[in-house]
Order: sequence, then C-alpha cells, then structure tokens
Amino acid sequence: MAVQQTTSSLDLHVDVDRTRVRASLEDALREAVQSGRLAPGARLPSSRALAADLRVARSTVVDVYEQLSAEGWLVSRHGSATTVADPVGRPSVPSGASAPTAVVPTYDLRAGTPDVTTFPRAEWTAALRTVLAAAPADALGYGDPRGRIELRQALASYLARARGVRLAPDDVVVCSGYRQSLWLLSRVLRAEGASSVAVEAFGHHAHRDVIVDAGLRTVALEVDDDGARPEHLDGHDAVVLTAAHQFPLGVVLSPVRRGEIVRWAAADRRVIVEDDYDGEFRYDRRGVGAMQALAPELVAYAGTASKTLAPGLRLAWLVLPPRLVEPVVELRRALLGQAPVLDQLVLAELLTSGRYDRHVRRTRLAYRGRRDRFVAEMAARSPGTPVLGLPAGLHSVVQLCEGDTEDAAVERASSRGLAVEGLGTYTLRPGLRPPSLVVGWATPPSHSFTAALRRLTLALAG
Amino acid sequence: MAVQQTTSSLDLHVDVDRTRVRASLEDALREAVQSGRLAPGARLPSSRALAADLRVARSTVVDVYEQLSAEGWLVSRHGSATTVADPVGRPSVPSGASAPTAVVPTYDLRAGTPDVTTFPRAEWTAALRTVLAAAPADALGYGDPRGRIELRQALASYLARARGVRLAPDDVVVCSGYRQSLWLLSRVLRAEGASSVAVEAFGHHAHRDVIVDAGLRTVALEVDDDGARPEHLDGHDAVVLTAAHQFPLGVVLSPVRRGEIVRWAAADRRVIVEDDYDGEFRYDRRGVGAMQALAPELVAYAGTASKTLAPGLRLAWLVLPPRLVEPVVELRRALLGQAPVLDQLVLAELLTSGRYDRHVRRTRLAYRGRRDRFVAEMAARSPGTPVLGLPAGLHSVVQLCEGDTEDAAVERASSRGLAVEGLGTYTLRPGLRPPSLVVGWATPPSHSFTAALRRLTLALAG
Repeated sequence: MAVQQTTSSLDLHVDVDRTRVRASLEDALREAVQSGRLAPGARLPSSRALAADLRVARSTVVDVYEQLSAEGWLVSRHGSATTVADPVGRPSVPSGASAPTAVVPTYDLRAGTPDVTTFPRAEWTAALRTVLAAAPADALGYGDPRGRIELRQALASYLARARGVRLAPDDVVVCSGYRQSLWLLSRVLRAEGASSVAVEAFGHHAHRDVIVDAGLRTVALEVDDDGARPEHLDGHDAVVLTAAHQFPLGVVLSPVRRGEIVRWAAADRRVIVEDDYDGEFRYDRRGVGAMQALAPELVAYAGTASKTLAPGLRLAWLVLPPRLVEPVVELRRALLGQAPVLDQLVLAELLTSGRYDRHVRRTRLAYRGRRDRFVAEMAARSPGTPVLGLPAGLHSVVQLCEGDTEDAAVERASSRGLAVEGLGTYTLRPGLRPPSLVVGWATPPSHSFTAALRRLTLALAG
Repeated sequence: MAVQQTTSSLDLHVDVDRTRVRASLEDALREAVQSGRLAPGARLPSSRALAADLRVARSTVVDVYEQLSAEGWLVSRHGSATTVADPVGRPSVPSGASAPTAVVPTYDLRAGTPDVTTFPRAEWTAALRTVLAAAPADALGYGDPRGRIELRQALASYLARARGVRLAPDDVVVCSGYRQSLWLLSRVLRAEGASSVAVEAFGHHAHRDVIVDAGLRTVALEVDDDGARPEHLDGHDAVVLTAAHQFPLGVVLSPVRRGEIVRWAAADRRVIVEDDYDGEFRYDRRGVGAMQALAPELVAYAGTASKTLAPGLRLAWLVLPPRLVEPVVELRRALLGQAPVLDQLVLAELLTSGRYDRHVRRTRLAYRGRRDRFVAEMAARSPGTPVLGLPAGLHSVVQLCEGDTEDAAVERASSRGLAVEGLGTYTLRPGLRPPSLVVGWATPPSHSFTAALRRLTLALAG
C-alpha cells in the first residue's frame, strides 16, 4: 500500500507492505535517507502523525525510528523531533553493496539467551509423537505436583552421570523455570524460619527480587577469582551460588571455598542453593561437578533446560535435600500443580534416548567455535584487553580501558548497531570490579558473528 | 515365581509374576477366596509378613488387601488381622464369567477431571510440527511474560465468538493453570490495597487457599438456585464467581444477580473474578455468555484448557480489565516469565485452524451422551432422587435420602469399588445444603460407564 504523507511537514511517499509493516517501513525510510531524498537535518513527522497517516500502530513507528537511530541514520532526542542524521554520524554503506537499501543488521551481544536456532525442532516433534503414542491417558490429568516420574527418573540418571549429582528420582521436583524454582525454595525457607539469604555480588537482579518477594532479606557476597567469598556468611540462613560458572564473571568456586561453605551450612542446617544454569558448557577442561555431591543433605541443586534447549520451554528442576522435598511439593500442590506435562514427557524421552546428550555435544562444539573466534578477534584487534570467563558458558566479561565508562561503551556499541550490557546491569553491590562489558556470544547468526565482533572491537576502541 | 508361605499361619501358595507383581497377587488372592481355598473367616498373614515372604514391597500387599476389601472379598479392620469375608458380604461372581479371576475394576466418579482419553494426540502432534516449521527462532527465547502474541490473538477471537467475551489480545495474559491465574490476580489485588475477597460457599478449598496465600481474607457467599447471593458483598474488595456453571452445584448466576453484582463492583472499582472453567460444556440450551461482557473494565475473566483438552497442559488465560494488565504482567515478569511456549503455539494453531472447535464439539456430544445415560439410570433406579446441575458440565450433585450421611454413602460407594466425594469436600461454609454426593461423569471408560452408574444407584439405595 502506497500512502502519501499529508499531515506532516515531510513530503514522503512510503510503501508499506501490509504483510510486513515494520520491515517495509524501516526499509523505505532507510532508503530515503541513503538516497538523499531525506536531507541531513530534515525533521521527520512525529511517530503519532506518521502512524495515523499510515494506519499502523504508533509503536511500530517508534520501533522503526529507534532502530534507524541505533543504526545512525536518524537522530532521536527526548522531547524533540526525530531528524535525519548528518552524514558524519551515519554508518557507511558498504561500497560493494549491490542494493542501496541493503539492511544494516543489528546484533544482540547481551548475555543470557542461548542460540535458539539450534533448538532440535524435528527431534522434539518426533519425541512428542513417540511419547503420545505410549503415554497412559492419566498422564494428561492433574498429576503429581512434583512432576512426571518418567522425567524425574531420566533426570536422576542424567544428572548423576553428567553433573555428578547424588540423587534419587524422589528428590526431584520439576519446575517452570529457575526463577520459579528459586521462588518456591525461598518460600519454603521463609516458612522454616529463615530470614536472610546471601547471594553473589554479581548476578541477576531479578533473582534477588524473587528471594525478597518470598519475604527474605538478601546480602551480597564479594566474588573474586576463586568465586564467592564465604567469610561473611555467618548470620545468614542460606546462600545462592553459581558455583560451576559464576554469572556473569565466569569464575569457578574453588574446592577450598566449597569445603568452607559446606562446613558453614552443616553447622546449623543452613541451605546452599546451587544454580547450575549452564554446567553443560565447559570447553577447556572436564566439566566442574556439581557442588551438591559434597553434601546432598545441605544443597538444593537447581538445573534448567533454558540454556541447553530453549528458555521458552520454561523447564527446570530442583534436586532437594530430603527434608525440603515435601514442603516444596506441598507449595506446588497448593499454588501451581505440576509443570506442564507434554514438555516433561518429551524431555524425558530425549534424555533416555541419548538425543539430549547428542544435542548438548553439538551445541557445545558450536559455542566453543564462537568462543575461539571471540578470543581470536579480541587478540587481533583489542590486544591486552582483560577478558574474564573464557573456558565456559555463553558469554565473557571484557574490561574497559582506563577512563572509559560502561555507559559510554554501551552507547558507542549501540551507535554501531550492537546491543550489549555493562557489568553494572548485573551488579548487586557496586564498586568491586572495574568498568566492563558483559558480552554474550550465543545469539548473532554464525555468518555474521565476525562482523558483530568487529563492531565490538571498534566500539571498545572508542 | 511361586512362593510357599512359611512365616504365617496361612498355608498359601501364591504365584507372583515379577513383571506384574501387584496384579498377579491380587488375582491369586481373589481366586483363592472365590474357589474356597481360603475359607470365610480365615486370617490372612499380616501385610508385613506376606511382603517379606514374597519379597515384594509391603505397600503392594497393603494395596491388594485394600482393593480386595473394597471389593468385598476380604474384611480389614483397623488394628486387627485381615480376614476372608463371609459369603453374604461378598460380591457375586457373574454367572456367565468365563474366568474365575476376572478383575473387578474400580471406577472414579470424582468431579474435576475431564475424559483425558479424548485428548487429540495426533492433532496436537501435527499442530506442533506445523508451528515448529514456521515459528521464528526468537519464539523459543524468554519472550513476553504475557504470553505469545499468536495465542493471545487466537484466544481473543475465540473467546469473543464462543464465550461472548469483549477483549483485545493485549488484555490477555497466558498462565499455567487457573490456580496460578487466581494467585497472580490475588497478589495484584492485595498490592492495590484489597483485603477481603468474597467466594462462593461451594467450591474448591484449594482456590480459597490460593487467595489466602496472597495475603487476603475470604468470606463465603450463600448460593441458591440463582447462584451466589450478593446481599453481603459490601465491605469486600472482590468476588470470585463460577457464573456460567457454579462449581459444584451447577446453577447459573441469574441475569438479575449479574446486574446487582456488576453495580456493586462499579460503585468502588471492585473486581469480579469470573472463573469460566467449563463454559464450553452446555447441553440443553445455548451457552451462557461470559459475565465479563457486561463490564470488561470490572471483570477479570479466567479460562482454561484443562476441561476442554487436558489438565496436564496447565494452560489457562486471564482476560483483564485494562488497569490490571500491567501489574499482573509485571508479577509474571518478576517471578515466572511467560508460560511454556510450545503448548501456547500449538493451542493457537488449533484455535485458528478450527480444530479446537471441532474437538470441543466432539467432546460435548460425548459428555452429553454420558449425561443422558446418567439421567436415564437415575430415573430407572433411583427415581425421585433430587439431582442438581444437569444441563451443563461434567458432573452433577445427587441428594441423599433422608437420614443418610455423606460419609456413609461414600463408604458404601467405596465398598462397591467407586471413588466418589460428598458435597462436604467442596463446602466452604457448612449447613447450607442437604447431604449430597458430587458425581463426575467424565472419567469411567465409556464401555463400563453403565456398570459404574449401576453401582452408584446401588450405593445410593444403601
């Protein structure tokens, strides 16, 4: 649909394809700037006016303006009109580009999301067909709030083998995502009389918020190269640790620290919550076994399929000390019932058939390749930049140059079309580490991964 | 494996098939009683001794003793030995029975679970293949805490058409089960300053517990033939209603009452929670439209796929008044994230392709057939028994004879191999209704449905 602008100062003919409104509007505006039809400094119509004229959602126009601003074609200032950028601030059009409307892609280097393009769609569907052919009808009923026995058995076998967890199927409670696991556990600890939970000084604010929602206080422990520092644990009732791979710093909790923390917990029935969010992804040496194996009666182990398969599944599990099983199950029974059953049955089938292991190995190799490309690119273009957290996981922490700030670096990256976050986003107690970026490697498409890294090193250079 | 009893007074040779321990033990004992090898009044070994001899779990023996006692072959008394029943108390062996060890099945007439054997397994798998072939990769990411747009759009269209709900996709929040919907809503109401929620005097204790967990007080409203009575609503901040089909009484909230309750809510921004758990299943007349349509800005409408598809999916949805959308979404974001994504995409596909409607029509016909058989059986064998809640849903309430009690009737049903519950199980405020049974029709297999009803009428007769 071609629409002639009428209600704004801008004489602009925009072709909006109703089957792809946002993309066609973005292409049309970018082309208008590139071709010079929109001159530097020209005011664009307000998002409200343009949306009304095109009969599209205002949010679509806002999105497109933001995207083109992030790419450097437009300039948006809070409270004033969006204008066409000066040529100096614009991205250069690749000279070999055949079409003047070539899309300038944006790369997402934020941590936390795996490469969901690797999700084994065909295998998942095949496994669903298999389990639905075999499952008894009552598997589709309300069921056991701890989750399907097939999955708890499969997890018991897998976690013992792959992560060294010591468990029986009855220790497992299937949950919908780690956040729900942590919330249920926090509620149970609170009901048991706990009041204060120690967390790592670096991590997700959302996780701390979940603990607080359950009525508990949190305090943040310093983290150094050996992981969380245990000397201030006294006075707290539990501690939450990313022991195998600190998020986001990437360090491993040392054996000495593990022993100290287990002794602290054993002294007064305190609880250690082990958040093993990406224990499968370790590249340079053998996987670091779960801390749970040191003290199954003290450690609540929390795992997830969010990194190995896809976050959208919301599949997670708790392996609980015996005394905590019933209270967690009762809370699930009261408020939630079991986790959705079909995904549970499919994951059980993938685990028992060995296809889960094969998928994890495939993706581990792919992530290792990305890690290697990241290391090579940093060494070639940002030599000497300190990088933390390289032998594992899906992200690293890159320290900024002396005098640089996270806000400035994030802004420079953004102006090059990169989404990336400062360490401050994951800091629960400021002032412990120099300014850094948390760089996720998992999501840019493989074919453009090097281009994304190139932009990152340019942004780091200032 | 054949085992000779040695540690007990009973000389009994039991063949236990290790691949089906429980069933073979049950068959062998039943056969021993039927054939007279075990005489009336004979003591059986204790469950502990028999379990030790047979090297099976004691719980297996306890189960088998309970089953055979429920069937009338054995007599178990708390604290004394299990004995063989007198022939008078025993079920008669059908004269035409070819095998003396014919299994006597147990039927579940409890309300609340639909006939999960009708779950459209092949269609579900086919729809998953379709959506996984088309879904963009980022559909598998953490996503929007309100749920997939595909499902919210499909629900908006379906609920408007099938249930008369007035809504836009952005009013919808996808949840994991009604209990979670109610809990999220209760938390948001509490945060808004609400302190007291009215509920119906008949319903699920678990639902009241969810409201209480969120920090709210509940009071129970009387229910009569026109539904919940509104005259004591003043002083409360919200009310939860099963307006289309009161659970479990089966009455419909009258138009006059609906108007009164909407006016009450409008007077002071109070909230009506409409629990539309089985609105699709109405047999004698057109469906009763959702109360939400009267006042979309006051009614939080809650729906679920638990009755139409399967409870194990834990798929449910809230249609919220505009001002409640953001707080509910934020609470989901903080504690849960979105509901699992694949089931959402599949349900969206089933809704938009019309297969959901066809499935609902198929199952509605089947349930209507069961309802008719139930009515015919009651008319033939328990004439004059008052029965409530017949034109809709998957259960009815059957009033007991003068002088009978729910406990006694449940016990008589149990001794005939029937699981059924008294109205007391669903009573939040006692003394309002005469003793009754809540009879679910959905789960006994179709081929044995008449046999189950026959036993029920026998149990009702005393």
